[in-house]
Amino acid sequence: MAKPLVLHEDRLFPSEASQRSIARALFAEVRGLPIISPHGHTDPRWFAENEPFSDATSLLLTPDHYLLRMLYSQGVGLDALGVQPRPNAKNGGGKPADPRAAWRIFASNWRLFRGTPSWLWLNQVFVELFGLDVELAADTADLYFDRIGAKLATDEFRPRALFDRFKIELLATTESAIDPLDHHKAIRASGWSGRVVTTYRPDTVIDPEHEAFRESFARLGEMTGEDVRTWRGYLAAHRARRAAFIAAGATASDHGHPTAATADLDPAEAEKLFGRIVSDSFSAEDAELFRAQMLTEMARMSLEDGLVLQIHPGTYRSHNPLLFGAYGRDIGADIPTRTDYVRALKPLLDRFGNEKSLTVIVFTLDETTYSRELAPLAGHYPALRLGPPWWFFDAPEGMLRFREAVTETAGFYNTVGFNDDTRAFLSIPARHDVARRVDCAYLAKLVAEHRMTIDEAHEVAFELSYNLAKQAYRVGGNDRQARSA
Amino acid sequence: MAKPLVLHEDRLFPSEASQRSIARALFAEVRGLPIISPHGHTDPRWFAENEPFSDATSLLLTPDHYLLRMLYSQGVGLDALGVQPRPNAKNGGGKPADPRAAWRIFASNWRLFRGTPSWLWLNQVFVELFGLDVELAADTADLYFDRIGAKLATDEFRPRALFDRFKIELLATTESAIDPLDHHKAIRASGWSGRVVTTYRPDTVIDPEHEAFRESFARLGEMTGEDVRTWRGYLAAHRARRAAFIAAGATASDHGHPTAATADLDPAEAEKLFGRIVSDSFSAEDAELFRAQMLTEMARMSLEDGLVLQIHPGTYRSHNPLLFGAYGRDIGADIPTRTDYVRALKPLLDRFGNEKSLTVIVFTLDETTYSRELAPLAGHYPALRLGPPWWFFDAPEGMLRFREAVTETAGFYNTVGFNDDTRAFLSIPARHDVARRVDCAYLAKLVAEHRMTIDEAHEVAFELSYNLAKQAYRVGGNDRQARSA
Amino acid sequence: MAKPLVLHEDRLFPSEASQRSIARALFAEVRGLPIISPHGHTDPRWFAENEPFSDATSLLLTPDHYLLRMLYSQGVGLDALGVQPRPNAKNGGGKPADPRAAWRIFASNWRLFRGTPSWLWLNQVFVELFGLDVELAADTADLYFDRIGAKLATDEFRPRALFDRFKIELLATTESAIDPLDHHKAIRASGWSGRVVTTYRPDTVIDPEHEAFRESFARLGEMTGEDVRTWRGYLAAHRARRAAFIAAGATASDHGHPTAATADLDPAEAEKLFGRIVSDSFSAEDAELFRAQMLTEMARMSLEDGLVLQIHPGTYRSHNPLLFGAYGRDIGADIPTRTDYVRALKPLLDRFGNEKSLTVIVFTLDETTYSRELAPLAGHYPALRLGPPWWFFDAPEGMLRFREAVTETAGFYNTVGFNDDTRAFLSIPARHDVARRVDCAYLAKLVAEHRMTIDEAHEVAFELSYNLAKQAYRVGGNDRQARSA
Repeated sequence: MAKPLVLHEDRLFPSEASQRSIARALFAEVRGLPIISPHGHTDPRWFAENEPFSDATSLLLTPDHYLLRMLYSQGVGLDALGVQPRPNAKNGGGKPADPRAAWRIFASNWRLFRGTPSWLWLNQVFVELFGLDVELAADTADLYFDRIGAKLATDEFRPRALFDRFKIELLATTESAIDPLDHHKAIRASGWSGRVVTTYRPDTVIDPEHEAFRESFARLGEMTGEDVRTWRGYLAAHRARRAAFIAAGATASDHGHPTAATADLDPAEAEKLFGRIVSDSFSAEDAELFRAQMLTEMARMSLEDGLVLQIHPGTYRSHNPLLFGAYGRDIGADIPTRTDYVRALKPLLDRFGNEKSLTVIVFTLDETTYSRELAPLAGHYPALRLGPPWWFFDAPEGMLRFREAVTETAGFYNTVGFNDDTRAFLSIPARHDVARRVDCAYLAKLVAEHRMTIDEAHEVAFELSYNLAKQAYRVGGNDRQARSA
Repeated sequence: MAKPLVLHEDRLFPSEASQRSIARALFAEVRGLPIISPHGHTDPRWFAENEPFSDATSLLLTPDHYLLRMLYSQGVGLDALGVQPRPNAKNGGGKPADPRAAWRIFASNWRLFRGTPSWLWLNQVFVELFGLDVELAADTADLYFDRIGAKLATDEFRPRALFDRFKIELLATTESAIDPLDHHKAIRASGWSGRVVTTYRPDTVIDPEHEAFRESFARLGEMTGEDVRTWRGYLAAHRARRAAFIAAGATASDHGHPTAATADLDPAEAEKLFGRIVSDSFSAEDAELFRAQMLTEMARMSLEDGLVLQIHPGTYRSHNPLLFGAYGRDIGADIPTRTDYVRALKPLLDRFGNEKSLTVIVFTLDETTYSRELAPLAGHYPALRLGPPWWFFDAPEGMLRFREAVTETAGFYNTVGFNDDTRAFLSIPARHDVARRVDCAYLAKLVAEHRMTIDEAHEVAFELSYNLAKQAYRVGGNDRQARSA
Repeated sequence: MAKPLVLHEDRLFPSEASQRSIARALFAEVRGLPIISPHGHTDPRWFAENEPFSDATSLLLTPDHYLLRMLYSQGVGLDALGVQPRPNAKNGGGKPADPRAAWRIFASNWRLFRGTPSWLWLNQVFVELFGLDVELAADTADLYFDRIGAKLATDEFRPRALFDRFKIELLATTESAIDPLDHHKAIRASGWSGRVVTTYRPDTVIDPEHEAFRESFARLGEMTGEDVRTWRGYLAAHRARRAAFIAAGATASDHGHPTAATADLDPAEAEKLFGRIVSDSFSAEDAELFRAQMLTEMARMSLEDGLVLQIHPGTYRSHNPLLFGAYGRDIGADIPTRTDYVRALKPLLDRFGNEKSLTVIVFTLDETTYSRELAPLAGHYPALRLGPPWWFFDAPEGMLRFREAVTETAGFYNTVGFNDDTRAFLSIPARHDVARRVDCAYLAKLVAEHRMTIDEAHEVAFELSYNLAKQAYRVGGNDRQARSA
């Protein structure tokens, strides 16, 4: 028997009556605010071409590494979930299941997601977007697959229609430094009013240990006409691509490095190091030092061109060599590691940390650094802000731990609001909804315990839901006036 | 004036009314479930011989390192608590106090245990087993000592009677690889229906730095008839002992190593390393590498014989040399240390992490790894499961932190239910009671905040209290059907 | 329009009704207890001279690194806050703003402190001491500045009058080893009844990497008449200064080291190491080892003279070289770092950890060590106690995390009550009020969840608010009898 599926109005609010009523009041004023999504991974092609999405599996299951990871951990093969192995894959990866078969397997394992954010996000998508009112399970798998497929075929579910329906004021995608940005150009040329911008992500041309480095590096030279084999030319090429990205709306760069290491070499040393990198005679230490130096170079360029600099450090990428061989990157075997910020960021901060016109947003997958390192650093350096709980921590308890660990030292104004950080376009409203609810729940507790006034809490809820993201990412002015007007 | 001692029916449940009523409902359905105790340290002799326990001190105080540790920290000598020094002890350890005198000292320091799990466990034992209704204190010490002594002398308090009364479905003890397993044989030969099984714990024949290594290693050769001085013979000896343990009911091995390091050397290298170990010309690095390699060898054997592999890493053993000199191992000076899992487990996981028929259960004393390392790893690798909060963390707040840190990434189904991990036989029901209550409290919060449905919570409560332990430790089938039948 | 400012009677108590009513009952019995302030940084000159404080800015803003740090992080220059640059400052530090202008900037940025302990402490000071009843904001800045200034000019706001009004039973200041202690002598000579004592803080004569080391070291020799260039003379000089401090009321020493490292060298090695230090030919490792050895030497002296030994380790001092150049030490750029205790403290503990007559109080800025290292260590070694949450963690969530992480392993009696650790004299009652409220809130939860009896909670609340500090710091007997009398 299918069980009813309902979204409770008070979900994620504290159950204690006084806190719940405060949380409701706070949330009532922010739930309808437009969505600012300043960091994410949706595909700009969707908005450029505005073609319908195809089916539940390829839209909601196969690209979602949260789902793949958990199912795999319980013995479900990625082939059974419809994941395509990479060409010439070693050790297989079998023939991918067809979408309906994959969806059935997912549905019959839905219990695995109890207590996880995927349960929250997807149930909200199921109810609000697809009008489903029974729980996902083996015996409702086909109902789901068919209903979702049918809706996706309608015009109301094309990317641009959903963008409008979701009340997205701004959506940032993330492109490699050598991306031609054609989709972004097409979006702008189309006359469509949706604001979709890109983000400069130069990892493949900065990290000499990236498997795509050589090819990307060569391409960087071709695209910019710079002699990227010289240090000066290489830096000029970055400047050129940053300018092209800015022309495609970018207000930020983003850097996914194994560690948070930064360096501030003198120019001659930096040039020598670069020489070893381009001549392909570098050690692992050289590679680390080069990535470190390039963060500082990026900060220097940010001071010139205004891009906000995001650092996403601390992952052991592709920890599972079997899966990497079969399926390639980003398939769920990225594992966080201990990360140091106090010493790692010092060279960059020594150089630029006191610059009021620079914004460096730092993220972490090591929660121990929230109170010990990140809040004290962000609570001191004018250039530093803290990104929201990232990836594994983009979930209610993760968000609460972030606020509880960070606020007493860094306050709210050294944080930057929410990032959905997702390629799962349909889940964007649910993700912002969860974040706004959790922030309101946190604030409600402060108010109920007389640690903040209700008026202050209303202001802070607005900042966290909307305004801080706009300010930190420089995607629009301070709307405080707008709001009180 | 003695103060009344009562066990509140709602202990450990949230005080907020809606959460409390949900917790009550969840707990009502799991409190009576049989106890699965798949990892612990009770003495199999008790069940083989079924002799009465002697007195309160030797049963409840002297073997309990939680109690000894705290009393010692506040200036009470171990001699005053009746602890026997080791033969030829250096620096003493005075003459142990007699049991009643030791009990009086314990009773007059009972306040030290406020806020600790010992308070919860022992109060439950005092009330439920011994019918005591006044608080333990200096002036009730004799009342306690006499009442407990009198009860222990009755047939209802013999080990097997208590085993039945406690509704223990399965109890695993832990024996050294060279244990003759006589008590387990005697239990099986006795025709008694209680299911007491052993666990293969080969630390003394694997860790070349263990003070008992040489002697144990020699004994291993004698017991198995293998030439354990060859790599092949040594591995064969392990296989033989594992088989003997399996015959005595074992479904798991257990490994207490200083770190979680694993290695996957090629056979020739492994053999050379073994050569250095047996010729007693090894470095500290060799010892660490050998322990690491042996975890992988154990995993390989587990794939053959089906034993579940438990890893308990990360303790600095016998931190206090004075106490170690006087009293030997396990006397309360074991201190957790920072532990890495991401790099440490990689060799084993590279080799066997994708095996669906292998179960590796990993524990930690470093809570920072819950969300950063362990949940992401267990939420990915099919072979990996997370053990429950261990030792210092087997307590209400420790359990809540575990669920809060782990669930959002690894869910519930990559965890394995509760371990009491105790030699304190009388406290086993109280320990499971605490664990079930805390899990129900955690689930009640999720339900009250509309993050889980009540039906889901009932299912998960059953899994956490009973079924996951049976499945993970392979001590019985999935009882889902049984339950819904 | 100015918003009303009120202090709610139930602030910081849980909002759930049963917990709140228990918290109220507990707090009612401890709120009026005298203040024991055994570790802090007020200026003894205030109590010696009893001159009025001058104005709001120089009393409440400029010396408060919590405030400076946060304002600076949001782009406010220290000059605008009235901070004096150091003589011959490099890179500036502009002319300090006048007090009223600085106060206006602070007032107009007051929102930054939402959710921080500064909000709690200062609002309580504003209401209770200055009778303010509107919120601090740009448009109330002058009202505040004038009201505070007027009050400070009255006799009721002189240091000694406030000391009495605050019901301070004991206040410890902290002086450098080479401080002449004149103010303390003057206080004693004055006949005033207030008990203000000093604390022996020899960092500048122990840390060879301290910028004041050479000068301080020479001064130590002059003051004591010892030949401090010999190891024996140097130790004798410490003994002499400790005796002088004890004569000025000291019951404790305090040590702020970069790490918690201790060492126990044999005397000849120690003497050789000292030789390298005094001949100024030491490495960074020597400096670290010397600090480490000196902690053990201090412990040895504590066994002779009874001083309690406090260790405050784990800060990266003056992380921001620009600010250090302009303003010197302690201006808000001290950042916590990862700290190890298990190995670091072992040499000292091996030597003296089992001494019942020694008290070593250890603090941390690395919260990960609470449950993993510090609670297990303090829950074992008779000589070790845990200091309260320090600095960034002296705040409601920080305090709760401390209790939740520590209590289940170390109980309450291995902790030492509260330290206000402040130079902000006016905030002392508010800081103790916050600590007492949070402890009562924590205990109320335990009682409401039937994890502690109400009678026990009353006793523990008294211990945490008053008695443990007196006992641990040896500033008065056990007042249990007194209380129950």
